[in-house]
Amino acid sequence: MSQPLLLTPGPVAVPNFVLEAISQPVIPHRSEKFETFYHELLEYVKYLFQTEANVCTMISSGTGGVEAAMYSLFRPGDEVLILSMGKFSARWVDYGALLGLNVKVIEAEWGKNISKEQILQVIDSSPAMKGVVLTHCETSSGVLLDLEEISYSIKKTHPDILLLVDAITTAGVMPFYLDAWAIDCAVTASQKALMNPAGIVCFALSQYGRSQLQESHSSDYRNLYNYIDFAEKNNYPYTPPVQILYGLHAALKHIKGEGLPARWNKAQTLAQYFRRGLDEIGGKVFSESPAHSLTAFTLESRDLNLTKKYLEAEGILLSGGQAHLKGKILRISHMGETEVSHMQSVLSVLKSENQF
Amino acid sequence: MSQPLLLTPGPVAVPNFVLEAISQPVIPHRSEKFETFYHELLEYVKYLFQTEANVCTMISSGTGGVEAAMYSLFRPGDEVLILSMGKFSARWVDYGALLGLNVKVIEAEWGKNISKEQILQVIDSSPAMKGVVLTHCETSSGVLLDLEEISYSIKKTHPDILLLVDAITTAGVMPFYLDAWAIDCAVTASQKALMNPAGIVCFALSQYGRSQLQESHSSDYRNLYNYIDFAEKNNYPYTPPVQILYGLHAALKHIKGEGLPARWNKAQTLAQYFRRGLDEIGGKVFSESPAHSLTAFTLESRDLNLTKKYLEAEGILLSGGQAHLKGKILRISHMGETEVSHMQSVLSVLKSENQF
Repeated sequence: MSQPLLLTPGPVAVPNFVLEAISQPVIPHRSEKFETFYHELLEYVKYLFQTEANVCTMISSGTGGVEAAMYSLFRPGDEVLILSMGKFSARWVDYGALLGLNVKVIEAEWGKNISKEQILQVIDSSPAMKGVVLTHCETSSGVLLDLEEISYSIKKTHPDILLLVDAITTAGVMPFYLDAWAIDCAVTASQKALMNPAGIVCFALSQYGRSQLQESHSSDYRNLYNYIDFAEKNNYPYTPPVQILYGLHAALKHIKGEGLPARWNKAQTLAQYFRRGLDEIGGKVFSESPAHSLTAFTLESRDLNLTKKYLEAEGILLSGGQAHLKGKILRISHMGETEVSHMQSVLSVLKSENQF
Repeated sequence: MSQPLLLTPGPVAVPNFVLEAISQPVIPHRSEKFETFYHELLEYVKYLFQTEANVCTMISSGTGGVEAAMYSLFRPGDEVLILSMGKFSARWVDYGALLGLNVKVIEAEWGKNISKEQILQVIDSSPAMKGVVLTHCETSSGVLLDLEEISYSIKKTHPDILLLVDAITTAGVMPFYLDAWAIDCAVTASQKALMNPAGIVCFALSQYGRSQLQESHSSDYRNLYNYIDFAEKNNYPYTPPVQILYGLHAALKHIKGEGLPARWNKAQTLAQYFRRGLDEIGGKVFSESPAHSLTAFTLESRDLNLTKKYLEAEGILLSGGQAHLKGKILRISHMGETEVSHMQSVLSVLKSENQF
């Protein structure tokens, strides 16, 4: 049997050039050779986030990464606004409560967006607001925040409010400019646009964001302070997963080689192609202002649990909906090394399904 | 130039059969196929820790793993005894303080051991003691605790005291029996005996240990409760690093194929071989009751920073001492797929060095 076509919006298929990089023999991490390598990798991470400021990596999944950023930037009692729009952003609300933050929430129905006006209304009535946690693209629904506009509106009047962005399904797929948009902290994970196995998170921090980190010289795995501090010396505070960093280096080099705008266009082309085809067979994009990273969609009156199985039998793997959207939507990735021909295959299998 | 011989006590060289496993295409983690695979992997982890109880994995480095276990088992204010014998075990003391535990410390000079009598003395005078954090082998010095004896002595009179063991450089290299020794929680990391890149931690928990976990149904990356809960259903609470789990599966299958006693004997043979040779050239084992996992050693009046560089020029990578032991000791691994011929090469290069 041939290899199934993996089109889940994370993990994405790992291309061969990344697998080859991962297969290189390990070098010890307390060595000049590692430092030279890691310096290059961090420069690529700066390019990814379009920043001249501070970057680092951490062994973690995306969830652990956003939690680490929240923990490092905020203190118990801090008033923090968190936008809840789906499974992932709802996690940040839960976690904020666990950290003892004074959490304000704007909640949108899954699939709906939140406007800058809604956000400003809360901020303007909360003079002690310390920060905002924004999920650039909510992967459970595919909704994209208008981050540039939101950030501009907030920072114009409240420059001290820390902006923490979950960029897990956007950095490398859609325009993202940490410096130009005045974002203070951004997080992404290896298994999305970076086409690697899960396990590494990348962070970028503005100078202001950095100045707000909890200081620590003791052991505290989640504190970004230690990671940024070591990254300045081109090293990592614990034992780094050298092979996975090789994979990340290969993917980021590849992305820089093509150029971010080419990558953004590629995702857009795939998304548009897929959505046109979907329209032709009676499907609908589920989300308001969808990101190009993935399409969450419904399909006439079909039971999408059955459709998902039908696709699997044809060797195509998509993700279903989560929680109350199980069976109601399917989600397809436009990230990584996905091609138009893959979109064609999916559309043609969807067309051929007859549930009735 | 040929590949250097990596003999640092973590990370260890990743053998080809592991790299090949890592290069396999990813499967989606919410699938029967993944669950079948993960079930097998967890069975191997049970074998590794010699337990019939609860096991799970987590994306993290070893440090993050021990911190997660401490966080999950203890609450602020709990009285916890932590043995501090070197760089790594000292971290658990720092972290215990950060968690707000009422930390009692027994500190030994680096290279020295701590006896069960010392431990019992503290425990007997602390009726509220909730748990003990033990570092089975302190990797910065190579000292091995007599874990079986210590555990037996504690549990005989204080069965409710939770025993949390950092088994990062012992599980898979030296005898370790979670159930028979009545250990409540053990942690190991992928880049040591398991011959994988850093990035995955494995945990085992007794039934009693499990009953003491902080309950959580919300997002909290460090809480073992969620990992154990998902592991029972052969799944993982976040996006798992599928390829790295393939690597772990391959290594554990290999270890089980050879049998743990054969692995333990192999490390012992290498350690004894190396230490005999060391003795012949005027070297000394640095630590009291050294583990077989690594040898920390001194060498006459040589400057071991220079010796380390001399070895590197000959293509051999060892680790130096940490903190105040920098330049004073070298550390060589006997873990992974290391061979007697590798020990011979190191000894012969050491013999050939002339600093005077």
